[in-house]
Amino acid sequence: MASVGFIGVGNMGSLMARNLIRAGHSLKIYDLSEEAANFVAQSGAKAVKSVKEAATDVDFVVTMLPVGANVRAVFIDAGVLEAAKPGAVLIDSSTIDVETACAVHAAAKAAGYEMLDAPVSGGVTGADAATLTFMCGGDKAVFEKAKPLLQGMGKNIVHCGAPGYGQVTKICNNMVAAINTLAICEAFVMGEKLGVDRNVLFDVLSTSTASSVMLTKSCPMPGPIPSSPSSNGFKPGFAAKLMMKDLRLSQAAAQSAGTPTPLGAVATAAFAMHMANGFGDLDTSSIVKLINPDI
Amino acid sequence: MASVGFIGVGNMGSLMARNLIRAGHSLKIYDLSEEAANFVAQSGAKAVKSVKEAATDVDFVVTMLPVGANVRAVFIDAGVLEAAKPGAVLIDSSTIDVETACAVHAAAKAAGYEMLDAPVSGGVTGADAATLTFMCGGDKAVFEKAKPLLQGMGKNIVHCGAPGYGQVTKICNNMVAAINTLAICEAFVMGEKLGVDRNVLFDVLSTSTASSVMLTKSCPMPGPIPSSPSSNGFKPGFAAKLMMKDLRLSQAAAQSAGTPTPLGAVATAAFAMHMANGFGDLDTSSIVKLINPDI
Amino acid sequence: MASVGFIGVGNMGSLMARNLIRAGHSLKIYDLSEEAANFVAQSGAKAVKSVKEAATDVDFVVTMLPVGANVRAVFIDAGVLEAAKPGAVLIDSSTIDVETACAVHAAAKAAGYEMLDAPVSGGVTGADAATLTFMCGGDKAVFEKAKPLLQGMGKNIVHCGAPGYGQVTKICNNMVAAINTLAICEAFVMGEKLGVDRNVLFDVLSTSTASSVMLTKSCPMPGPIPSSPSSNGFKPGFAAKLMMKDLRLSQAAAQSAGTPTPLGAVATAAFAMHMANGFGDLDTSSIVKLINPDI
Amino acid sequence: MASVGFIGVGNMGSLMARNLIRAGHSLKIYDLSEEAANFVAQSGAKAVKSVKEAATDVDFVVTMLPVGANVRAVFIDAGVLEAAKPGAVLIDSSTIDVETACAVHAAAKAAGYEMLDAPVSGGVTGADAATLTFMCGGDKAVFEKAKPLLQGMGKNIVHCGAPGYGQVTKICNNMVAAINTLAICEAFVMGEKLGVDRNVLFDVLSTSTASSVMLTKSCPMPGPIPSSPSSNGFKPGFAAKLMMKDLRLSQAAAQSAGTPTPLGAVATAAFAMHMANGFGDLDTSSIVKLINPDI
Repeated sequence: MASVGFIGVGNMGSLMARNLIRAGHSLKIYDLSEEAANFVAQSGAKAVKSVKEAATDVDFVVTMLPVGANVRAVFIDAGVLEAAKPGAVLIDSSTIDVETACAVHAAAKAAGYEMLDAPVSGGVTGADAATLTFMCGGDKAVFEKAKPLLQGMGKNIVHCGAPGYGQVTKICNNMVAAINTLAICEAFVMGEKLGVDRNVLFDVLSTSTASSVMLTKSCPMPGPIPSSPSSNGFKPGFAAKLMMKDLRLSQAAAQSAGTPTPLGAVATAAFAMHMANGFGDLDTSSIVKLINPDI
Repeated sequence: MASVGFIGVGNMGSLMARNLIRAGHSLKIYDLSEEAANFVAQSGAKAVKSVKEAATDVDFVVTMLPVGANVRAVFIDAGVLEAAKPGAVLIDSSTIDVETACAVHAAAKAAGYEMLDAPVSGGVTGADAATLTFMCGGDKAVFEKAKPLLQGMGKNIVHCGAPGYGQVTKICNNMVAAINTLAICEAFVMGEKLGVDRNVLFDVLSTSTASSVMLTKSCPMPGPIPSSPSSNGFKPGFAAKLMMKDLRLSQAAAQSAGTPTPLGAVATAAFAMHMANGFGDLDTSSIVKLINPDI
Repeated sequence: MASVGFIGVGNMGSLMARNLIRAGHSLKIYDLSEEAANFVAQSGAKAVKSVKEAATDVDFVVTMLPVGANVRAVFIDAGVLEAAKPGAVLIDSSTIDVETACAVHAAAKAAGYEMLDAPVSGGVTGADAATLTFMCGGDKAVFEKAKPLLQGMGKNIVHCGAPGYGQVTKICNNMVAAINTLAICEAFVMGEKLGVDRNVLFDVLSTSTASSVMLTKSCPMPGPIPSSPSSNGFKPGFAAKLMMKDLRLSQAAAQSAGTPTPLGAVATAAFAMHMANGFGDLDTSSIVKLINPDI
Repeated sequence: MASVGFIGVGNMGSLMARNLIRAGHSLKIYDLSEEAANFVAQSGAKAVKSVKEAATDVDFVVTMLPVGANVRAVFIDAGVLEAAKPGAVLIDSSTIDVETACAVHAAAKAAGYEMLDAPVSGGVTGADAATLTFMCGGDKAVFEKAKPLLQGMGKNIVHCGAPGYGQVTKICNNMVAAINTLAICEAFVMGEKLGVDRNVLFDVLSTSTASSVMLTKSCPMPGPIPSSPSSNGFKPGFAAKLMMKDLRLSQAAAQSAGTPTPLGAVATAAFAMHMANGFGDLDTSSIVKLINPDI
């Protein structure tokens, strides 16, 4: 079993840390909110007062933070890269911009550490059930070293390639998921307006060429799937504001790659309108309200 | 076994008619191309010289035609609605605009006939294997009457509701399929440009929230699926020009419904550019060339 | 001076008819609303009880109707093409779909009449001031015959070419105007969110490469132009629902031409969302609310 | 007359520097390309060997560089902020991302200098004729101090507000200009495909609500304006790759502001496709080739 400094225990991080504890690892927990750290510590870990303290004398440092600036701040400004012991493996599971991910990788390497960017998909459900997918960027050897630890939090641990590639893969996935969701909304609202029952549409589309995970697992129209967020007041699930963040990252990546993403671009604008309408805390599938405000 | 007048035996119609013959039905075949009609007749049917002759003295008239104007012409101008015997059931399996579908339904009703619009999905592969999905609009009783016949050509026979609803359902499905395809292209081209191998992207996205039938059955990037059209010179499959047609129908329907289809609209423009570049005869997945012309 | 049967005296038609009366022409007025017809007749015309009566014994029949189906109904079903005297010139100033315009042209020709499609731009302001632009499709000789009459209602009378070309030109113009308007909204909302005063943005953009009539004459941001609809509660001007209609016609035309209109398509979807939000009666410039709901 | 260190004398910078020389200012010139620096120096300036040398002992440092990273490198890494004398005014006329502009402003302030971001519009024509528009961000007092110098290179010198606001204003302007250009392309290609002559379209649209500077000054359809880039093999003018850069900056700004830019996003994707097709060196108006590849 390993010793782990876990930094950032919000909605996702708290569940992930708890699973590491359950798997028998020894954890030090740090969060800006002392309360949040103490809460997770009750599962059998030590809450500490600083990033540096969390990073000291552990085999792994795992971070789960909101945005790239936080990741840069924790690793570089707050001193993870000074405090960690030689040979410690650094794992950033935050979903952040590729540029920052690569910059932190480079700083870690310069300081003599091995690092992975390892963003996840699966949401709070997957975090809770330890069934997350980890998309990992970094050396294959580091990936192999980290894999057993990540298996305590997830089911599908994938090596995507070089530093930053975990982030790239994650935003490719989520951009497609967002587009697929909006596409379903457009089709169902149109079909229903022209008279076809949404359950008929669901039955046909979910068994034909239009089918997708976003349709069969979380159909954005209330009704066809009783357990979907859309059938339960759009309670997330995966909040629209988080999808908005990933779409923004996807567009930053598209600009940096110089590749066209016409649908990704329009989906980003659509979610930005949805945010402006005040729906960021609802599930991603609530984007259907942009197509039909009466839903 | 029933007697059937089958009008329109092109790529799809010829395979569908052959399956009806194999199922033991008695067919009269008509096509503008006498050669095409004669070819199918070799499987054990009678080629006739006119629409009226095909429609005379049969239990079912089945049409499989390119566009709405053809359907209107065959049923109204060329005299199906005069020639067919009382009690004959009319089935239009063409994919056409909702407005024309409803107009022909109304004309049929006025002339005392029962009718279904019954467009299909599944392409030439499904037509050949008699595994098509039929999306049917019209009275439930007519649907039940036609179902046994349709089962000779397809596997999934769905009643979508009132006249025209088969068409509505079909274009909802295909609009989503087209969007999902283009979304994959955008994500893969971007991911690959940023360094991630397309096989890694395929492995992750096909097992995560981005997954869709268009990804797992006909990934538009050459490589990940060896049997996909994209891996075989974009040989269709479902030709881009046919998807273009369905996208146009979807936008006509959206205008008529007065509902917003931002992604559907952009996908339509994208396929129109693809047509203008001369790629209409390639598989739908060739739209990837619009995102990366080097593929 | 000519005798004119004027059919359709709504917001636009009433002002146009009045100007013809003022110009000294002799008018018979018909409208579905007897009240509307009587109102205009007070300016010195005769209100009549039927389309046929309006079309009988006049040099020109002028129609100003909401949609293509109305135009078809008036000319074909309600009998203008029977009632009008030989040599009468038929002028349809409605903005309608190209297909219907051409169909009515063809019917008129078959019945021995000369016809122009002659949609207008300039709105109620232009109709009131007799400064409308008329975009005319039809034979040059007919155009020349109609021109003096049209000059009683407008300032810029343009021959666009063959039957239907007036409609094509009109929707090309309005599609661009709608796009330019939305573009301004996007830029101003973004600029202002990043701190720049909207008056500064107006001063720079209106004197630089971003300048357009939609910016300098009816800036969609309230403020910079005190007399603009946006500065006056978005009172039209040109109602958003009318722009929506023209955008739909533009997309129908794009589908029929098979040409890509990516921006036109997105603008259409944007206005459809705006309609769904209930803002159809506000000025076109109110589309800014879609980009920033707080405006 | 002032002493000026001018850093970056490419297509634009060389013309701007020459105008400062002509206006009687005393210039030191630096460029990565010694040849470029020497060439401009022939007009009556001193070519120097380093950024620091250019920045030493001058009243103004003016930079005209391709991207934000260059600006950061020149001011911070290459030592302008050490070498310049107390009281020197720093003017960056590059078009760069808002974030970098603000960061360099902050670094300049921390080092005790006054600074303006002052991107320009007007292209090589405006640079040559000293008729550029300067959009300036920074303190009003600094703006007033710099204005006389800027008037040697431009005609319209505007104070847009705080640090970075010059950049914001510039990209708002150019995003709208790009959209307006593409809108014209869509409308003209559609109109012409439906039969209307492009000269007729030009005459009507340029005098109606669709009119814009991008239409009347550089109509993207070859023909209507004989002197436009489109009528001259799309020789720039303003190269498509430069517009692409500005569109990317606009989308970065939109993401940072969190505002929706649906048309800006699609225009960005369209130009990215145009780049992928290899047309970056043609004039911006060549984007018409994306809508109709035969032009």
